[in-house]
Amino acid sequence: VNAFDPWPPVPEGHPFGLANLPFGVFSHPATGAGVRRIGVAVGDSVLDVAPVLDDGVFAAPTLDPFLARGRAVWGETRARLTELLADVHYQGVVSPHLLPRSEVTLHLPFTVADYVDFYCSLDHASNVGRIFRPDAEPLLPNWRHLPVGYHGRAGTVVVSGTPVVRPCGQRRPPGAEGPTYGPSARLDIEAEVGFVVGVGSELGEPVALERFADHVFGVVLVNDWSARDIQAWEYQPLGPFLGKSFATSISPWVVPLEALDAARVAGPAQEPAPLPYLRRAEPWGLDLSIEVALNGTVVSRPPFATMYWTADQMLAHLTVNGASLRTGDLFASGTVSGPAAAERGSLIELTWNGAEPLTLADGSTRSFLEDGDTVTLSATAPAAGGGVIGLGQVTGTIHPARRSP
Amino acid sequence: VNAFDPWPPVPEGHPFGLANLPFGVFSHPATGAGVRRIGVAVGDSVLDVAPVLDDGVFAAPTLDPFLARGRAVWGETRARLTELLADVHYQGVVSPHLLPRSEVTLHLPFTVADYVDFYCSLDHASNVGRIFRPDAEPLLPNWRHLPVGYHGRAGTVVVSGTPVVRPCGQRRPPGAEGPTYGPSARLDIEAEVGFVVGVGSELGEPVALERFADHVFGVVLVNDWSARDIQAWEYQPLGPFLGKSFATSISPWVVPLEALDAARVAGPAQEPAPLPYLRRAEPWGLDLSIEVALNGTVVSRPPFATMYWTADQMLAHLTVNGASLRTGDLFASGTVSGPAAAERGSLIELTWNGAEPLTLADGSTRSFLEDGDTVTLSATAPAAGGGVIGLGQVTGTIHPARRSP
Repeated sequence: VNAFDPWPPVPEGHPFGLANLPFGVFSHPATGAGVRRIGVAVGDSVLDVAPVLDDGVFAAPTLDPFLARGRAVWGETRARLTELLADVHYQGVVSPHLLPRSEVTLHLPFTVADYVDFYCSLDHASNVGRIFRPDAEPLLPNWRHLPVGYHGRAGTVVVSGTPVVRPCGQRRPPGAEGPTYGPSARLDIEAEVGFVVGVGSELGEPVALERFADHVFGVVLVNDWSARDIQAWEYQPLGPFLGKSFATSISPWVVPLEALDAARVAGPAQEPAPLPYLRRAEPWGLDLSIEVALNGTVVSRPPFATMYWTADQMLAHLTVNGASLRTGDLFASGTVSGPAAAERGSLIELTWNGAEPLTLADGSTRSFLEDGDTVTLSATAPAAGGGVIGLGQVTGTIHPARRSP
Repeated sequence: VNAFDPWPPVPEGHPFGLANLPFGVFSHPATGAGVRRIGVAVGDSVLDVAPVLDDGVFAAPTLDPFLARGRAVWGETRARLTELLADVHYQGVVSPHLLPRSEVTLHLPFTVADYVDFYCSLDHASNVGRIFRPDAEPLLPNWRHLPVGYHGRAGTVVVSGTPVVRPCGQRRPPGAEGPTYGPSARLDIEAEVGFVVGVGSELGEPVALERFADHVFGVVLVNDWSARDIQAWEYQPLGPFLGKSFATSISPWVVPLEALDAARVAGPAQEPAPLPYLRRAEPWGLDLSIEVALNGTVVSRPPFATMYWTADQMLAHLTVNGASLRTGDLFASGTVSGPAAAERGSLIELTWNGAEPLTLADGSTRSFLEDGDTVTLSATAPAAGGGVIGLGQVTGTIHPARRSP
């Protein structure tokens, strides 16, 4: 028995403190080589949950069955873990199941059922409009009436750390008549926040805004890698496809909504007032501070609290036509960009479509991503009583294209 | 033992004859109330495959594990079933496992992983262009260079017979400034053919055109129900979302590619020649004759052989960026429309956006679907040596919207 000392096993103010307790899936030689189990991050450790709570649902290789159990069980589990980790009385039984976080391998925490990506930042949508339609109204007519969204590829959602191979495809060089085939030359990121559905719903039955927290378990960070040249050529009239579907990275720790109570904010005023099914009932804006680092240089600090459409509105819209939810559905906010230039969540905005390259700490410049570049998104939220809740990070490194043009 | 007589248990020329042998998932009191098992349609019967082939993979509640086994096993299984059903020597052991097709309940045959919908009919894309952009070139610049596609909602793919609840949502009445909420008033169908992926692929590795039949197991009919008013308001700039995601119906019997050998055709000539990764190596056009019936009146006969982009091209394009495949991925052709007016695969084309309503056998007229309407798609393909291979049918009835505006 490795008696973990001191107790609780995390110092005050740690982003993975007792107020956080995010869930993930890990493997470690001590729990069986290659065997995946449910873990909870506590300070610099991972708690192997199954033996401590004596519940087979945590011996599963994904969070799926736990997610499906619903809000009451999520809350009870969290309360019980808090008790076990806070009270020194349990030190002897719990500490043998704490593993060093640096030693575990983290896996995709849940099976992604459907992946929907929204477009909820007013500043992002406005920037994109100004870049591509400089002489027109930046926002399209529908933008202030509904959270615009589309389906992405669930099967290529990968966990943080998975290499991102530069995609090949068709893109039309400026001024050319037709397309050529080759590696994307305009590889970008999108800093986003994703919401993980635990409890499904019936086909034909919309999920009202007020039921948001009955269905959504928690939050991850999302990097929606985007090949801008492939996207620009393909997207008319059915939307993004191969420009996005090669990889979408998510952070390994799912932070429960309950841990974000102190981060809840009203969300920006909306004008015109949305239709009744989209009218907010509770504050579901979230004051998350995101940081975007490119090869170690922080290039942006997008503020999630500025998002025009909040997550409860996204879910109500997604289901208003009767579309059903399944455990493991993931819906993401779209690029998070604030009003300031240093708050933009994509390179296409940060470099204004390449016209204003970024300078990194090593003196090199970037318009879009180069092979070998590593992008890391991280985020924190305010915790009750001070300190922060960490959302951890999502990172990925660009590997060269596998095929030449 | 119910000795089925005569043997083989299907007359010559039957669309579910020995040259077809499509796979599905059924339940029947005789094999356990509510228990799902793999079945093969033979004439007016369903063969309960598990006891006959003595392989647990067929006692699964979905085709998923069988699909994952790959092309060699698909072929061996088909050969063995053909032998068992053709040779009267096996009548005694096989016939007890034949159930009347009229008595079984058919279920979704596989777990839909990702659902992609293409836009591969030149006539459909041209008609839509002419309707919505009467003064412009009907086809967008990318259309002849790549099979345009997008991701749909996998979780709302349902089996034939599932009621389709009229979706509610935002739509902007003609001339209005902003949207209103209410039931779709322009509910439509799209007659399509879907391809079912059996064998997955690795992230980062494109699947070349030549590998089509190593990954794709077979074919289903698809009705991609579409709410045209919801779609028109929402789709800029990220493509269709709620206008499609409320339901997509598929036929219950997956017809193996092997059964469609006699239906293979070259596909139309393509001008300009596609980029090398899309250049056809084998004939993967399919001569399927589709029939669209609305409340029993046949309103269209779309010819699948006219599709500009063939299924091998769709698969090569879908993966050219390194997107991986999973067992259960479904990709559909997009609306099948031929050059003639009576060959159009959607009501918006058949009625020219409502301007030329259809008259049904009962004398009533339709621009779009009314509550209570039933749409049934069916299809056949030529069989080797004459006769036809039946693809069965996909049917659905419109139920009234659950919420009023």
